[in-house]
Amino acid sequence: MKRKEKEGSRASSLRIIPLGGLEQIGMNITAFEYEDSIIVVDCGLSFPADDMLGIDLVIPDVTYLKEHLDKVKGFVITHGHEDHIGALPYVLKEINVPIYATRLTMGIIENKLREHELMKVTKRKVVKFGQSINLGQFRVEYIKTNHSIVDAAALAIYSPAGTVVHTGDFKVDYTPVFGDAIDLGRFAEIGRKGVLALMCDSTNAERPGFTLSERTVGKTIDTIFQEHKDTRIIIATFASNVDRVQQIINSAYRFGRKVVVEGRSMVSIIETASALECLNIPENTLIDIEQLKNYPDEQTVIITTGSQGESMAALSRMANSTHRKISIKPNDTIIFSSNPIPGNEKAVTNVINELLMKGADVIFQDVHVSGHACQEEIKLIYTLTRPKYAIPVHGEYKHLKAQAKLAAELGIPKERIFIVSSGDVLELSEEKAGVTGRVAVGEVLVDGLGVGDVGNVVLRDRQHLAEDGIMIVVMALDSYSGQLASGPEIVSRGFVYVRESDELMAEARELVSAQVLRCLDRNVTDWGKIKATIKDSLSEFVWKKTKRRPMILPIIMDVKD
Amino acid sequence: MKRKEKEGSRASSLRIIPLGGLEQIGMNITAFEYEDSIIVVDCGLSFPADDMLGIDLVIPDVTYLKEHLDKVKGFVITHGHEDHIGALPYVLKEINVPIYATRLTMGIIENKLREHELMKVTKRKVVKFGQSINLGQFRVEYIKTNHSIVDAAALAIYSPAGTVVHTGDFKVDYTPVFGDAIDLGRFAEIGRKGVLALMCDSTNAERPGFTLSERTVGKTIDTIFQEHKDTRIIIATFASNVDRVQQIINSAYRFGRKVVVEGRSMVSIIETASALECLNIPENTLIDIEQLKNYPDEQTVIITTGSQGESMAALSRMANSTHRKISIKPNDTIIFSSNPIPGNEKAVTNVINELLMKGADVIFQDVHVSGHACQEEIKLIYTLTRPKYAIPVHGEYKHLKAQAKLAAELGIPKERIFIVSSGDVLELSEEKAGVTGRVAVGEVLVDGLGVGDVGNVVLRDRQHLAEDGIMIVVMALDSYSGQLASGPEIVSRGFVYVRESDELMAEARELVSAQVLRCLDRNVTDWGKIKATIKDSLSEFVWKKTKRRPMILPIIMDVKD
Repeated sequence: MKRKEKEGSRASSLRIIPLGGLEQIGMNITAFEYEDSIIVVDCGLSFPADDMLGIDLVIPDVTYLKEHLDKVKGFVITHGHEDHIGALPYVLKEINVPIYATRLTMGIIENKLREHELMKVTKRKVVKFGQSINLGQFRVEYIKTNHSIVDAAALAIYSPAGTVVHTGDFKVDYTPVFGDAIDLGRFAEIGRKGVLALMCDSTNAERPGFTLSERTVGKTIDTIFQEHKDTRIIIATFASNVDRVQQIINSAYRFGRKVVVEGRSMVSIIETASALECLNIPENTLIDIEQLKNYPDEQTVIITTGSQGESMAALSRMANSTHRKISIKPNDTIIFSSNPIPGNEKAVTNVINELLMKGADVIFQDVHVSGHACQEEIKLIYTLTRPKYAIPVHGEYKHLKAQAKLAAELGIPKERIFIVSSGDVLELSEEKAGVTGRVAVGEVLVDGLGVGDVGNVVLRDRQHLAEDGIMIVVMALDSYSGQLASGPEIVSRGFVYVRESDELMAEARELVSAQVLRCLDRNVTDWGKIKATIKDSLSEFVWKKTKRRPMILPIIMDVKD
Repeated sequence: MKRKEKEGSRASSLRIIPLGGLEQIGMNITAFEYEDSIIVVDCGLSFPADDMLGIDLVIPDVTYLKEHLDKVKGFVITHGHEDHIGALPYVLKEINVPIYATRLTMGIIENKLREHELMKVTKRKVVKFGQSINLGQFRVEYIKTNHSIVDAAALAIYSPAGTVVHTGDFKVDYTPVFGDAIDLGRFAEIGRKGVLALMCDSTNAERPGFTLSERTVGKTIDTIFQEHKDTRIIIATFASNVDRVQQIINSAYRFGRKVVVEGRSMVSIIETASALECLNIPENTLIDIEQLKNYPDEQTVIITTGSQGESMAALSRMANSTHRKISIKPNDTIIFSSNPIPGNEKAVTNVINELLMKGADVIFQDVHVSGHACQEEIKLIYTLTRPKYAIPVHGEYKHLKAQAKLAAELGIPKERIFIVSSGDVLELSEEKAGVTGRVAVGEVLVDGLGVGDVGNVVLRDRQHLAEDGIMIVVMALDSYSGQLASGPEIVSRGFVYVRESDELMAEARELVSAQVLRCLDRNVTDWGKIKATIKDSLSEFVWKKTKRRPMILPIIMDVKD
């Protein structure tokens, strides 16, 4: 209270600024600002939308943080999924502040820092559940939750303006495979002391009921192993789902099978999780892929990446016979221990069809549970924390909307429920709350080594090129005499197979020649005008003949010297 | 029997040759051949796969039919969906034989023929259910079925080698909205006389149970109208689902609402269906879109295209505020009376999110039933027709496989169940059956006016351009003196935004210059060699600097004259 009075007229409210993640899935990053202190919860990437041709990754624009660099105290990370940590190596190059995370989360982050040669320059601190860290005006407490990755945390963010509980991505699992159940008691204690706002995972807010325990999948896997004692088993799942991998290994051990791990990300995460003792692999269970041939099929299991039909992942390469070491055999039992992420349905189905055509038995339903809370779990967290304000996070707009509806049903007045967008500045205090401003946010595209050098112009060009290809018109002009020294020649790529269209191209060349000569006859010396004439006339000609609009690129060379 | 003896040693078996539709969804077309006669069941298109950049449609390669043109007696069409009729206008230009179809199916086909100016040159015959047509050695009987379009038919194809029953796409609806229930009695009669083979729809062969009647959707729509008496209702569905449109109109009429129809394909099919009396619109129910403003919102319904999130469809344009006549209002009730077709999930979700952001109430679950038979219906048809051979059709490989499993469960020996691929020649007679050969099949790509002029080379170029853009290196050489007359200049598109990469481009130009001058110094006159040098060196440079591989296109102009 002292502090508040000291500040006088200046409103000492907490500012919550999502810098990404609220208009699309992925790229979760939220700034919490109180006076001279900013902390940043998560720093994720998203994968390119269908129209971002050639783009590898999308990371958030963190201009706001750069402009307030002196305030930024650190990144507090909830868990180790790409949409929560993936942008760190890029953002750290501009905002070099400490990272706080639980053990496995930090292990996964460190793999990334090593790859980007950032280990030496990045301060890191591993946080235990129940532990708090002080960051300027903030104190952040890590609370144990459950999720589809080990060591996921919710955060209690204490500020002079009040306490915000951020669930991260979570579910309630009373019988988790590794470690403890979510610390519901702590949520209740914090709730009793008073919670200003709850920021709660919305992913499954449309789904009634309660998400099943991860252990139920273990039982399903056991049953499948029991029913397929005579065949090789190949099982695909998310690399980061360490608990799932643990259960597959448990089943394999129980049924006397050796385990091969395949796929770069799967190998990497299993190494990290084993080293941190989040994964317990019995001795003599893991074998190298090269040893596979030394064991009969029915004594082996291959755990692999590719459960989302990703074209370069191990399972997809097995399915289309481009995997160098594993060929699908007619007797294989192949399990998808996953559901397709929205947008991947068709790719997954294609891989399933390819595997079936090779004669394999493919099991792709009900060998998975979600890592996110359904409606009853969301209601449980609301009921325990009793927040004044509700700020649904993590989900598409329809999911946020569904959680807002739940919050309203639980008695939170509508004016205290905020569906915010990336860039909104939400100011909160006990007295009032509302969106009071906007900061610049956006997507930075990563293509190869380039970060941000591919923008809308380049993307639009790629889209154009992809649709109808390009026609390049080149000619050499003698700028002294104003005469054509060579050309015009027309070269096309991605437009139409040239041998099939010799006549079309000849006509086009004639047309362009005539246009250029007409310009030169009229003493047009402005090359811009000549280029525009070429573009217009050729474009119209091609549209009439083919109903296509290739990009038309006139290039004029000067041979005066 | 007489015929068979006369033929002597020549095997008089029936040849069934799927020319498309069995490796991907869509493009259904199957040739039936007996001695000097070929009939073709359906002639559909498919929509381009994600990697077919810039392609509008895909149609089947009908080389086999062209090579046996004298045998081809006609197209017998099962129903009016694009994947069964869409390729007709293209294929008819090469294979001008009569078309046989039921009333509405022919109405929809004629719309296409008009567009392609083929009405005058195409022989057409409308067939009634129960009617047979004689086509060379074949007789084809049309049997009433139910499906998500009115006037769908199964075919009994009688040949000297035996009878094949082809279900087309079907479901069993005991209480259809328009017309009669599927003619199960006729299936039974034909079954009693002996069926050589059953070709049955596999789309829902993985789903247990029985597909619900279309009428159940009518009840759901009524309930929604009842619960939303105070708002405008916008309802999106498949244009071709005339029964669905009928039920929406019925609900609108019942609740005293005027109906606006929006979206080109929706308007066209409603006109056709009304003219043929397959759709019954009460007087004064339909109003023009321009009249919408004369009625209060709660007295209007807009039936629209766009239920699949298609970017150019009316509902998508309303959602992203580019529709010229209809703006979404915060109070609108918007109904998706459809399920997303596999591959469209993300597009549909995006439209739902946009509509929710505009404040509309969006209902997108359980206002739809499938038009395809589930397992119990498939079993019913097998049981009635009692075929000797089972040939699952219409579905992805996994669906065909699922039906094959059902057929086996019903007691058909495995060696009499055939999962065939497009191009397989399946020979059938009472005595034996098997795939005895292959014919050429394939996909012909339609881009604008071009049919087949975009092939793999062009698609590969488009893919390359889409990924990383293009760098064009132009220069003028004096081939007499062997000197550089101008350039080299480098122009890029879709690679990197040039202002952001001036340095990179300058370095690239220097590198290329040096390479070219070195070639000229050594008196290299083979331009192919100079181009190869430019390509290799620039490609390596760009990869090192950016980890990207733009297409590199060197163009050399000769200025000797």
